Amino acid sequence: MRVGVLTGGGDCPGLNAVIRGIVRKGVQEYDYDFVGFRDGWRGPLENDTVPLDIPAVRGILPRGGTVLGSSRTNPLQAENGIRRVKENLAKQEVEALIVIGGEDTLGVAARLSDEYGIKTVGVPKTIDNDLYATDYTFGFNTAVGIATEAIDRLHTTAESHMRVLVVEVMGRHAGWIALHSGLAGGANVILIPEQRFDVEQVCAWVTSRFRSSYAPIVVVAEGAMPRDGDVVLKDESLDSFGHVRLSGVGEWLAKQIEKRTGKEARTTVLGHVQRGGTPSAFDRWLATRFGLHAIEAVRDGDFGKMVALRGTDIVRVPIAEATSRLKTVDPALYEEVGVFFG
Amino acid sequence: MRVGVLTGGGDCPGLNAVIRGIVRKGVQEYDYDFVGFRDGWRGPLENDTVPLDIPAVRGILPRGGTVLGSSRTNPLQAENGIRRVKENLAKQEVEALIVIGGEDTLGVAARLSDEYGIKTVGVPKTIDNDLYATDYTFGFNTAVGIATEAIDRLHTTAESHMRVLVVEVMGRHAGWIALHSGLAGGANVILIPEQRFDVEQVCAWVTSRFRSSYAPIVVVAEGAMPRDGDVVLKDESLDSFGHVRLSGVGEWLAKQIEKRTGKEARTTVLGHVQRGGTPSAFDRWLATRFGLHAIEAVRDGDFGKMVALRGTDIVRVPIAEATSRLKTVDPALYEEVGVFFG
Amino acid sequence: MRVGVLTGGGDCPGLNAVIRGIVRKGVQEYDYDFVGFRDGWRGPLENDTVPLDIPAVRGILPRGGTVLGSSRTNPLQAENGIRRVKENLAKQEVEALIVIGGEDTLGVAARLSDEYGIKTVGVPKTIDNDLYATDYTFGFNTAVGIATEAIDRLHTTAESHMRVLVVEVMGRHAGWIALHSGLAGGANVILIPEQRFDVEQVCAWVTSRFRSSYAPIVVVAEGAMPRDGDVVLKDESLDSFGHVRLSGVGEWLAKQIEKRTGKEARTTVLGHVQRGGTPSAFDRWLATRFGLHAIEAVRDGDFGKMVALRGTDIVRVPIAEATSRLKTVDPALYEEVGVFFG
Amino acid sequence: MRVGVLTGGGDCPGLNAVIRGIVRKGVQEYDYDFVGFRDGWRGPLENDTVPLDIPAVRGILPRGGTVLGSSRTNPLQAENGIRRVKENLAKQEVEALIVIGGEDTLGVAARLSDEYGIKTVGVPKTIDNDLYATDYTFGFNTAVGIATEAIDRLHTTAESHMRVLVVEVMGRHAGWIALHSGLAGGANVILIPEQRFDVEQVCAWVTSRFRSSYAPIVVVAEGAMPRDGDVVLKDESLDSFGHVRLSGVGEWLAKQIEKRTGKEARTTVLGHVQRGGTPSAFDRWLATRFGLHAIEAVRDGDFGKMVALRGTDIVRVPIAEATSRLKTVDPALYEEVGVFFG
Repeated sequence: MRVGVLTGGGDCPGLNAVIRGIVRKGVQEYDYDFVGFRDGWRGPLENDTVPLDIPAVRGILPRGGTVLGSSRTNPLQAENGIRRVKENLAKQEVEALIVIGGEDTLGVAARLSDEYGIKTVGVPKTIDNDLYATDYTFGFNTAVGIATEAIDRLHTTAESHMRVLVVEVMGRHAGWIALHSGLAGGANVILIPEQRFDVEQVCAWVTSRFRSSYAPIVVVAEGAMPRDGDVVLKDESLDSFGHVRLSGVGEWLAKQIEKRTGKEARTTVLGHVQRGGTPSAFDRWLATRFGLHAIEAVRDGDFGKMVALRGTDIVRVPIAEATSRLKTVDPALYEEVGVFFG
Repeated sequence: MRVGVLTGGGDCPGLNAVIRGIVRKGVQEYDYDFVGFRDGWRGPLENDTVPLDIPAVRGILPRGGTVLGSSRTNPLQAENGIRRVKENLAKQEVEALIVIGGEDTLGVAARLSDEYGIKTVGVPKTIDNDLYATDYTFGFNTAVGIATEAIDRLHTTAESHMRVLVVEVMGRHAGWIALHSGLAGGANVILIPEQRFDVEQVCAWVTSRFRSSYAPIVVVAEGAMPRDGDVVLKDESLDSFGHVRLSGVGEWLAKQIEKRTGKEARTTVLGHVQRGGTPSAFDRWLATRFGLHAIEAVRDGDFGKMVALRGTDIVRVPIAEATSRLKTVDPALYEEVGVFFG
Repeated sequence: MRVGVLTGGGDCPGLNAVIRGIVRKGVQEYDYDFVGFRDGWRGPLENDTVPLDIPAVRGILPRGGTVLGSSRTNPLQAENGIRRVKENLAKQEVEALIVIGGEDTLGVAARLSDEYGIKTVGVPKTIDNDLYATDYTFGFNTAVGIATEAIDRLHTTAESHMRVLVVEVMGRHAGWIALHSGLAGGANVILIPEQRFDVEQVCAWVTSRFRSSYAPIVVVAEGAMPRDGDVVLKDESLDSFGHVRLSGVGEWLAKQIEKRTGKEARTTVLGHVQRGGTPSAFDRWLATRFGLHAIEAVRDGDFGKMVALRGTDIVRVPIAEATSRLKTVDPALYEEVGVFFG
Repeated sequence: MRVGVLTGGGDCPGLNAVIRGIVRKGVQEYDYDFVGFRDGWRGPLENDTVPLDIPAVRGILPRGGTVLGSSRTNPLQAENGIRRVKENLAKQEVEALIVIGGEDTLGVAARLSDEYGIKTVGVPKTIDNDLYATDYTFGFNTAVGIATEAIDRLHTTAESHMRVLVVEVMGRHAGWIALHSGLAGGANVILIPEQRFDVEQVCAWVTSRFRSSYAPIVVVAEGAMPRDGDVVLKDESLDSFGHVRLSGVGEWLAKQIEKRTGKEARTTVLGHVQRGGTPSAFDRWLATRFGLHAIEAVRDGDFGKMVALRGTDIVRVPIAEATSRLKTVDPALYEEVGVFFG
């Protein structure tokens, strides 16, 4: 049996661990052959491949990024995309395809499997942890660790200068990174995309924190929005090119806090640092197990499925179901954490 | 309502996060008073207390250890132990007691609750992750992270000198730390207490690794034993005081490997470094949530229960059930990981 | 003898280590008393003090920030500033004042000593390492370490997506952080304030890097400027409030690279994370020794001097000389490092 | 010109950075060719080489260990060693040899240069920092950082259980790692090979520390010896094989402290973890510059010289001089640090 592997979407610590898990088990236990497709769906679309065997996966476990490269290419939007993918898989004599990616990349895998009979197995990947049907995705733990370390460091600057520090973390549609790193970092305010925030309430928390002579840290997900946000954000964050929201909600919020509380406020945008570099031990464990179970699903002929974490077990769920909706922060959980605000 | 808190057994990153979670929520949401008992069960036994309020828990979230101190004192073994504990709790006007500890400490809490009507709520704590009824305990993730970093570092020494490096990690009765850090660190052999190992097999893996011109890392839990181990270990590791096993299984194994394979082998015993210092973001999150849910159990009058992690939820289970047996590594999981051996 | 201590200017990992060194040696070896002035020169100006003895410095060695607080208050610009400082020092019965700070804070100390007979000893502090007369200042090593870790992480994102990543680090007037972290992080271009850069040359390096199929990392000091920079930066980076250069040279450069090379480019601004949190071992060593030598200078009656690092020795130099000019990157050193560009 | 490169002795973070610096500058600026000799002096002795060009040094900057391998082979002790080295260098058409190593490896380089006319340039390498003629050697800063992190972690365990923690760090002949990490980690006792220690004095410091209700950390270099040490250590640390000093001074000291103070004491031996893994930013900077200057010395025909750090400059000194004696800790410096003992 010859199996193809591809990685799509934004990069995420742990991708290489998945690939290594797949290949080690596939070769050693099932005697499979592998071929890597380059840059996500662009690989099968353009028949661009890379050799994938035991030597190719040596030493990649602790390395961030993906040895296969990645892209956001979508074969469903390419001319004759599906046909070309099918043809190239055939040319490569690939009988099954393991697709490692997020909502978009897996969405294609689901459709190829369900509608076009291509044998796919999915592995969930999103640094934002917002993929439904799995307790956690790999990369998330690493990102939270990096953000927490940054918040730990910012505390001392905040205290020494009695300033508000606003930290903008990743999370366009879900506040998981903000929630976990904010709690772990001892933030005084955490703002997430799932609940529009009230700037007045934020300022009240900030002020109350100063009253007990401590300087506040505000952690805000990049996708968080003020209650009457659209208007305000558009108004104030036009950049010199006329582009909207260049500076992001973090910058905007710091200005609002300065204006309304009279306290100095500074913003740190963590950005790409959160998604690069060596995966945490947790993510190497999770990613490796995803890889081992993905190739097991191929062996079992259990296609159209995605591996997922439930408690400490790896289970299989229909890809289509997993990509049908986002996993957002439950209001009850946000409220639970709210005891630390202010 | 006045609530007592104590921490017992070996220290573990996250203890302070639990205490902070309990006090913040207890004071702010339920208006409870708190008293800290010093050094585990020694506190209520000898009426040794420490004030516990919001200022007392400020800034402790990222700090390892426990502000309450710890000990292995067991009131069931002290003269009039139970009576003294009951009297001192009464003196302190404590109506409920939150007990943070491992098997032993919680075992006392279970008996005090079930047999003597003392209102206790348990919070599971073991760096070894071997407490039944919870997916993970806090401190474990930190320990695995530290061990993995150490293994990452040892790879380069092994490679540069073509030596075997044996890394002894914590885990007397369960191999969780060895299994997770060994997998995450890319170890070539992982040995756990749950399965006696065959020295010949270990040497075969070591030799095969060298054959592909890489130097092997062997991760061994401190409680791992060779198949015919009792005899051998006792024989060879008597120290100069006549004490048994001073040097541990790591030292013993390195000598065996040298003798049998002719390759140089070195041992690193990670020791206490694994259980100290700042908790990882994951452990701060878990420990804080355990604290929040423990005080909620008090509020609900749900005594004799322990908080536990199931997937991403915090649930409650009878303390007695949780301490009834160890959670050891499932043979199937060990086999799954075995694909990376050799 | 009673000695005052103050910390001024931006915070910097190691400040607490200096304070601890001063107090431990002053109390234990010379039997001095201490008083801390709060928030830099604001303390002696407004007679705002904090007790400073052995218990006050316990446990502060690994902590970032400063237990004395900091500010940019300048008594030379305050009404009757000098007189008030002298009066308050007299009120506090302070016979000597140790001033820990950068160019501005030490500049005041030099004038107070040289012109007004106030007995001061200086300790150099600047995260940017641009203070003349000392090989290194504490805080710099920590900042370089943090920036290097960030660059390490960004490599994998750059590679996985074949993007240019621009990293903006601290350094308004001197490029030390950019130079050290850029070299240590394996950057392909490093831009410093000391030498105006040529955007075309930067783009040539970027393009050449892609040609060997690697993705480039560009490290730029916040104070770096393009050759014909004033005009260009002002033109393009007006923000929506009409403020100039809100977004900084990093953002500007990324846009230029995108426009001129057609490659995707992203910017990460490391910001305050570089100056907070626990000091590196190197900085704890240097800062502690600065503290020990500063109090020794007081004991020797050697006022108007600043402690400085020369090789592995701590020496004393006139404060006035040390603050007379900036230590910038030597063109020869920049050229030496240039072998790694492109 | 064709230049050979070899790395000898124990591995050390930064070796790869030196190699990369040499090759990048040699190829790009001087158009030299390179050949790598494998495993230190074994390479030229047995004509065992590895290709060394720009692609060979890509990505190795952040990696610990050495891509050339290492050994302690000494051609002066091999049969016809010198002749074979000369012949093989001739076979490889190598006109100059850059030797990266410690006292032993460089000692050979000095003799080959001074007595046999082989053109060598030396680069100093010792994790222990005990090589005369250079302010610092690369690897040392990394080791100190790792040891300091470990000590930071051990503090919380010491405090939570009120135990003495003895940390044994590297340093057979010089106490640099103990001194720097002990100071940076806030140790209460630091013991170095340069000065025999008095166990009674150590116990007095330990007891005094407990009196102020803190738990002591004792940092001891592996080569430190008690005043009447030979006898005592031999007596008590015979292992079950009759080997002497298996368990080391750390274990021995902990037992002495337990016996004499009645306090629980535990030992952590950091071991190989200190010398592996990614180099710190400081070491990458220093090692890279050593590489750049070594190849410059070759270009200048300045043979028999070693590059060395003086302040912030790289200078050249005769190899023979540099290896003539050890750089040990100055008694005055040890006394300076002694203010923190007890």
